[in-house]
Amino acid sequence: MFSYDEYETRMNKTKQKMLEYGVEVLVISNPSNMCYLTGYDAWSFYVHQVVLVFIDEEEPVWIGREMDAEGAKMTTWLSDSRIIPYPDEFVQSTIKHPMDFVAHILNDLGQGTRKIGVEMDAFYYTAMSHERIQLGLPDAEFKNASSVVNWVRVIKSDAEIAYMRKAAYIVESAMQAAYNKVDVGVRENEVAAAIYHAQIYGSDDFGGDYTSIVPMIPSGKYTASPHLTWTDKKYKNGDFLTLEIAGCYHRYHTPMARTMALGKAPDYVLDVGKVVNEGIAKTLQHMKPGITAEEVEDVWSQTIAKHGYVKGSRLGYSIGMSYPPDWGEHTISFRKGDRSILEPGMTFHLMPGIWFDDFGVEITESVHITDEGVETFTSFNREIYEKPVS
Amino acid sequence: MFSYDEYETRMNKTKQKMLEYGVEVLVISNPSNMCYLTGYDAWSFYVHQVVLVFIDEEEPVWIGREMDAEGAKMTTWLSDSRIIPYPDEFVQSTIKHPMDFVAHILNDLGQGTRKIGVEMDAFYYTAMSHERIQLGLPDAEFKNASSVVNWVRVIKSDAEIAYMRKAAYIVESAMQAAYNKVDVGVRENEVAAAIYHAQIYGSDDFGGDYTSIVPMIPSGKYTASPHLTWTDKKYKNGDFLTLEIAGCYHRYHTPMARTMALGKAPDYVLDVGKVVNEGIAKTLQHMKPGITAEEVEDVWSQTIAKHGYVKGSRLGYSIGMSYPPDWGEHTISFRKGDRSILEPGMTFHLMPGIWFDDFGVEITESVHITDEGVETFTSFNREIYEKPVS
Repeated sequence: MFSYDEYETRMNKTKQKMLEYGVEVLVISNPSNMCYLTGYDAWSFYVHQVVLVFIDEEEPVWIGREMDAEGAKMTTWLSDSRIIPYPDEFVQSTIKHPMDFVAHILNDLGQGTRKIGVEMDAFYYTAMSHERIQLGLPDAEFKNASSVVNWVRVIKSDAEIAYMRKAAYIVESAMQAAYNKVDVGVRENEVAAAIYHAQIYGSDDFGGDYTSIVPMIPSGKYTASPHLTWTDKKYKNGDFLTLEIAGCYHRYHTPMARTMALGKAPDYVLDVGKVVNEGIAKTLQHMKPGITAEEVEDVWSQTIAKHGYVKGSRLGYSIGMSYPPDWGEHTISFRKGDRSILEPGMTFHLMPGIWFDDFGVEITESVHITDEGVETFTSFNREIYEKPVS
Repeated sequence: MFSYDEYETRMNKTKQKMLEYGVEVLVISNPSNMCYLTGYDAWSFYVHQVVLVFIDEEEPVWIGREMDAEGAKMTTWLSDSRIIPYPDEFVQSTIKHPMDFVAHILNDLGQGTRKIGVEMDAFYYTAMSHERIQLGLPDAEFKNASSVVNWVRVIKSDAEIAYMRKAAYIVESAMQAAYNKVDVGVRENEVAAAIYHAQIYGSDDFGGDYTSIVPMIPSGKYTASPHLTWTDKKYKNGDFLTLEIAGCYHRYHTPMARTMALGKAPDYVLDVGKVVNEGIAKTLQHMKPGITAEEVEDVWSQTIAKHGYVKGSRLGYSIGMSYPPDWGEHTISFRKGDRSILEPGMTFHLMPGIWFDDFGVEITESVHITDEGVETFTSFNREIYEKPVS
């Protein structure tokens, strides 16, 4: 939970954006945006739930499942009267849809003829959600306001940066736990278990939260596909693997990836690793307020092009608070055509992985744009770690 | 991975349902349904991806992000020619949407004028997905086919039941790890860490997979809200908590909840626990092929009503394979009005939690409908565990 002042600032910035978009009521389905504005934190986003923001009212309204209403009272700054539960018969029914209920409440509140922004491409705002809310509010005018709150989230407060620093401590500890655990004869899932334990244990002073993406630790040829999770196969001498994980503190994420080998890494892996590390170093030198996301990607592309490499996928993206299934904010991406201007307080996952048909190398950093330049959240050796085989 | 025969049966049952629904092409966005039909398994559902099923073709088509295509080749039974990647510029862009690409492929394949079923209320099939695919296929006729594959999934094969038995082993081991770890002065997150470790370690013979819902372990008054996760608060003598967790093996889940106390549990918790356990016992006695989901709930309601209790939320739901954010199948629910008939091979999470304004008790069982009756996947003591305080 943040201070009331911080929530008020978030609400005001959201309302400013609503004005920009011509939206009087914002229907928020993205759980990260719900939490960002109200503090609501529970694993309840597998049923439909929303936060409603009215451009002319101080407090939003939370609408969710009956059994989650107590949790909304416990975790948000909202008055109890702004927590509206829907009965369980609306849950995963083919007959009754929670958005019928939401539309009904909006009508009751006299909001049925207003300009209503919905998060058209947000996780959990399904095609059916949109169909039902439109049916229930025939006189409203609907607008796409998919990432209104996401764009507010782009600049972090000092309190948020402090959370991400704690998450950074956790990810370093989890990566070290993985390095310690990987060994000949150990199964991939045992490494995943060690990572999880470190992520959730956190530190002696603060506990860890679950990450929005599970540990992704493919090895050998499976490193060609970075989003594979793990198997129960045992490692052997000469195996190499990529580890992409995060630390999470109160829903704030600091992701990090590294590449390691058991014994000697193949030369082609080491070679790509050197290029990636040169690319990271050069890119970090250039990142500072005032340059564009596209320019960040340019520096990287030009650096690796000298060695004959091309990376087709984006070089990184904005990060911060998030819920599964993604820790990205879905706003700024480091790629051609993205002219977003870097500003102090922005935070990114700089994601310089290079993937081929039969292997991949991934070494990444979470970074924070400062007044003068950039700083990495972690200070964990970026070289490909060749773990001695006992 | 299952045998080719098993995938063929799943495909045939799906095509039978497509015929029922009047659908020639099925666009599947639900990652559980994608995996069920093709084997595709990766944490890539935070970007749009689909499996296309054609009523008159043997093999489905997978469409996803470029960097995930290798993973699709590795994990599915599909021919490489049926794996179609989209370029990274479609990822989380406000300009280009992956469903533009999907529509383009459907047109190219000569499917642009057919009857197309889409999963209107599936996680990750957003309102924008639906808008873009409709724009791209102006001559197609769209139908809601939200849970076509979910309904195929309802009856489990012997191979699936075998997976769920392994998941059952894991959830027992994870619950025991929680019981062992909870103690005065221990933090909630340390219990979560122990649960995670046991879930992913699995057994010495097989590894565990990540569960689709994280451990939910609220304590004290927070038990009133079952979907709260954990904090880093330390337990004290007299605390009680509900633990709802699952084991997962190759995406198949066996959930289980228990309620425990440190030292003596409050009498009101013990009293509710007795009623819940009587209700479970009575309900299990009645569950067998031929009765309806509604009748299952009736037995329960009548049993607890004798003691003056009412449970407003559904008593359980169909379970099996799944991806975050839910381990439910979104088909059969034990509640009034659900006349689905129980059949051998069905599997359910029998979910008799009772929640009040200031506390809750949750004791649940995953069950399998057999030819004669029902069996529980686990055999873990259902009494409220009062752990002696040292």
